[in-house]
Amino acid sequence: MSKIHITELVLRDGHQSLIATRMRTEDMLPIASKLDDVGFWSLEAWGGATFDACVRFLKEDPWERLSKLRKALPNTPINMLLRGQNLLGYRHYSDDVVHAFVKQAADTGVDVFRIFDAMNDIRNLKTAIEAVKSVKKHAIGTLSFTTSPVHDVAYFVSMAKELEALGCDSIGVKDMAGLLTPTLAGELVRELKAAVSLPIHMHSHATSGLASMVMLKSVENGVDIIDTCNSSFSEGASHPTTESLVAALRGTEYDTGLDLGKLQEITAYFKDVRKKYWQFESEFTGVDTRVLVNQVPGGMISNLSNQLKEQGALNRMDEVLAEIPRVREDLGFPPLVTPTSQIVGTQAVLNVLTGGRYKSITNEVKNYLLGQYGKSPAPVNAEIRQKAVGNAEVITCRPADLLQPEMTKLQGEAERFANNEKDVLTYAMFPDIGQTFLQERNAGSLQPEQLLSKEAVTQQTAAARY
Amino acid sequence: MSKIHITELVLRDGHQSLIATRMRTEDMLPIASKLDDVGFWSLEAWGGATFDACVRFLKEDPWERLSKLRKALPNTPINMLLRGQNLLGYRHYSDDVVHAFVKQAADTGVDVFRIFDAMNDIRNLKTAIEAVKSVKKHAIGTLSFTTSPVHDVAYFVSMAKELEALGCDSIGVKDMAGLLTPTLAGELVRELKAAVSLPIHMHSHATSGLASMVMLKSVENGVDIIDTCNSSFSEGASHPTTESLVAALRGTEYDTGLDLGKLQEITAYFKDVRKKYWQFESEFTGVDTRVLVNQVPGGMISNLSNQLKEQGALNRMDEVLAEIPRVREDLGFPPLVTPTSQIVGTQAVLNVLTGGRYKSITNEVKNYLLGQYGKSPAPVNAEIRQKAVGNAEVITCRPADLLQPEMTKLQGEAERFANNEKDVLTYAMFPDIGQTFLQERNAGSLQPEQLLSKEAVTQQTAAARY
Ligand SMILES: [Co+2]
Ligand SMILES: [Co+2]
Repeated sequence: MSKIHITELVLRDGHQSLIATRMRTEDMLPIASKLDDVGFWSLEAWGGATFDACVRFLKEDPWERLSKLRKALPNTPINMLLRGQNLLGYRHYSDDVVHAFVKQAADTGVDVFRIFDAMNDIRNLKTAIEAVKSVKKHAIGTLSFTTSPVHDVAYFVSMAKELEALGCDSIGVKDMAGLLTPTLAGELVRELKAAVSLPIHMHSHATSGLASMVMLKSVENGVDIIDTCNSSFSEGASHPTTESLVAALRGTEYDTGLDLGKLQEITAYFKDVRKKYWQFESEFTGVDTRVLVNQVPGGMISNLSNQLKEQGALNRMDEVLAEIPRVREDLGFPPLVTPTSQIVGTQAVLNVLTGGRYKSITNEVKNYLLGQYGKSPAPVNAEIRQKAVGNAEVITCRPADLLQPEMTKLQGEAERFANNEKDVLTYAMFPDIGQTFLQERNAGSLQPEQLLSKEAVTQQTAAARY
Repeated sequence: MSKIHITELVLRDGHQSLIATRMRTEDMLPIASKLDDVGFWSLEAWGGATFDACVRFLKEDPWERLSKLRKALPNTPINMLLRGQNLLGYRHYSDDVVHAFVKQAADTGVDVFRIFDAMNDIRNLKTAIEAVKSVKKHAIGTLSFTTSPVHDVAYFVSMAKELEALGCDSIGVKDMAGLLTPTLAGELVRELKAAVSLPIHMHSHATSGLASMVMLKSVENGVDIIDTCNSSFSEGASHPTTESLVAALRGTEYDTGLDLGKLQEITAYFKDVRKKYWQFESEFTGVDTRVLVNQVPGGMISNLSNQLKEQGALNRMDEVLAEIPRVREDLGFPPLVTPTSQIVGTQAVLNVLTGGRYKSITNEVKNYLLGQYGKSPAPVNAEIRQKAVGNAEVITCRPADLLQPEMTKLQGEAERFANNEKDVLTYAMFPDIGQTFLQERNAGSLQPEQLLSKEAVTQQTAAARY
């Protein structure tokens, strides 16, 4: 009997972290039967940025991908990452849309929903959890891990208890920035196991080179399921390596029972697939521990660096890096993850470049201070709120409570190009590109973005120089 | 007070593992004062393949490099890797050469000698250890880690005791293939600590993605010094990351006391340096766990694959991989490391391609079976020895016992082009390329290999296609 279970991430978070979510369904299906045969607890294969990437770049119907994967993986639960009340889009949806989306996802093939909120505002998770339970699927109540004066182990334990009370089937830790150290992970898992009676998942990114150690200490402290990625798409901004964890635990009381030989066949396949996507390879594949010093995640540093470069102000980077923790404090220490990482980062850049803190304030910061993203972990800076939004009324209820049911309206809007409810939901997630995608599909004119041949680019680049 | 000490590998094993040992002294010196300021237990900066690479490719005098590093690193002990009676060459040297070499190295700047033998034959380590003790430097008696029916924890503990009896100052574990699992490493360190009263070093390559976990379990079980590499040259065929281990242990009872900010300045420097050497980048930078299934180290697989490709027999790879453990068993389970990895690999290829095992036998295997590399860990296959060398006499003494003192002879041979004993030793290590190097140096005609600009190569490659 295996003691530790594995969720394999190669079909979602692995390629999202390393090749900008570009892996196509045609590269997943040929290896599906081998993946299915391994015995993973689940395969994360949908949600996160995959929906967006399918519609925007690959011109694939994300629902069709899910349906094909479901057929190709008869023995393995399919996992998706769901952004709570945001679903897979970038705004809060009304509850009827959340229910409709979750039901369609479940009907089409998702068995396990990993549900998180960037603010860790339980109210933003509640409807999604209810929706998953109402279709009798597995809900992972997820803690967006971060560090701050308010984010201690007790904070996350208390949140886990609330998630258990909401009916979650398990509790997931989501360490998107690679902030967890092995010691802290061990302590967190131990306290979570003591406080709730649900299985615990550990999900950590390898950015700072700590994630495999984090998994090991999580395992020793009672974690039930670890999220890992096949070595073809592991490490760096991605995850600790599946084969390595399987090997590390082999023959111990925590043995996963998975076969290393079978995993290596999958590795050989995906190593080859990865070459096809060379143009999307991130420059940041190695270990980067800067997040542990300045609390700014690696991906955010690269975005900021591009932003500053465009404005000819790359030399102000150190000031921006020093300003970020101050802005984050002003906003009540949100975890830095989409969308809060962009909100904090952009404001920090403005605070540095405009020659005065909050001389200019973005609309996103204003909305944030009005409570429109949910409750901040700690109170926001009242003085700055006053400066930003004056005496405008601040929302203290759940943001989605202010939304009317909108499925009927969306159905009406999408009537001309939507064939079914899945199409309506695609349009709901991404109104502009969703509509374009559906119209092009109907017209038979979908054109996936081009995959460049490395050789051709080499020739072009050189030719252009002559 | 820091509890765990770190040996930083970026100046030797890091670039040896990832860019074919090509880093030049000019790229080491500008950052030396920052490296010196960190507080490493030691910096591995000499020995291994660096001597060969200096003479063969970089046209640098390796002794001069050592001398410059010594001046630039006034506060940090310099570490070298020494192949026992082979020193840095590819044959056994007489004892007077070993003494002369160690004395020159110590006088020029080496403080710590990490001494190993590919066969783990203590007799091949004895003279080098004596030589280090006679110049009052630190000798690390090193265990070449491998797995086999004879290589259990007891085997290595017994070897460690012998090394302690020989006067070593500490005991090093050298896991060159990344075979150690965290559990095994913990057990090994615990048993070593119980059996000897010397500090223990852990050195493991990250090939199979286990090395950072190996370090963590080693630390928890009492290891004193861990070998790690700055993130600019870490992971993959190299080592677990210095910054990550420092971060992992920070605030625990094992805190290294090193400053992450200072380390990151060094990272930024070397990340830039690495770009200069792009043409030497290994294709194998990720995690590769195949060694854990077939016992064949990653580097050896790539060599074999090249060998087979040249002979149009790449399709026989699986047979060769299956044959390697059998040849290794016939030879009494030597650890697979230079030169035994080549000896075993080449014979395995012959056994597969010639249509009969040992139909053709290499000279190296014959010499091995004659005992000329030292005592094999387990007895060799007597039938195959009979087939290979008939009734020729097998050496059972220490191979170097059959060598006459040779310094005087070497001095005579090198008289025309050697200015001093260092030159004689350079010639002794590499008779052909050493002589050429010294003659060209004397003539002022040394030409370092060219570093290609990536852009120029791109243009050339493309132009050649028109
Ligand atoms: Co993730
Ligand atoms: Co090494």
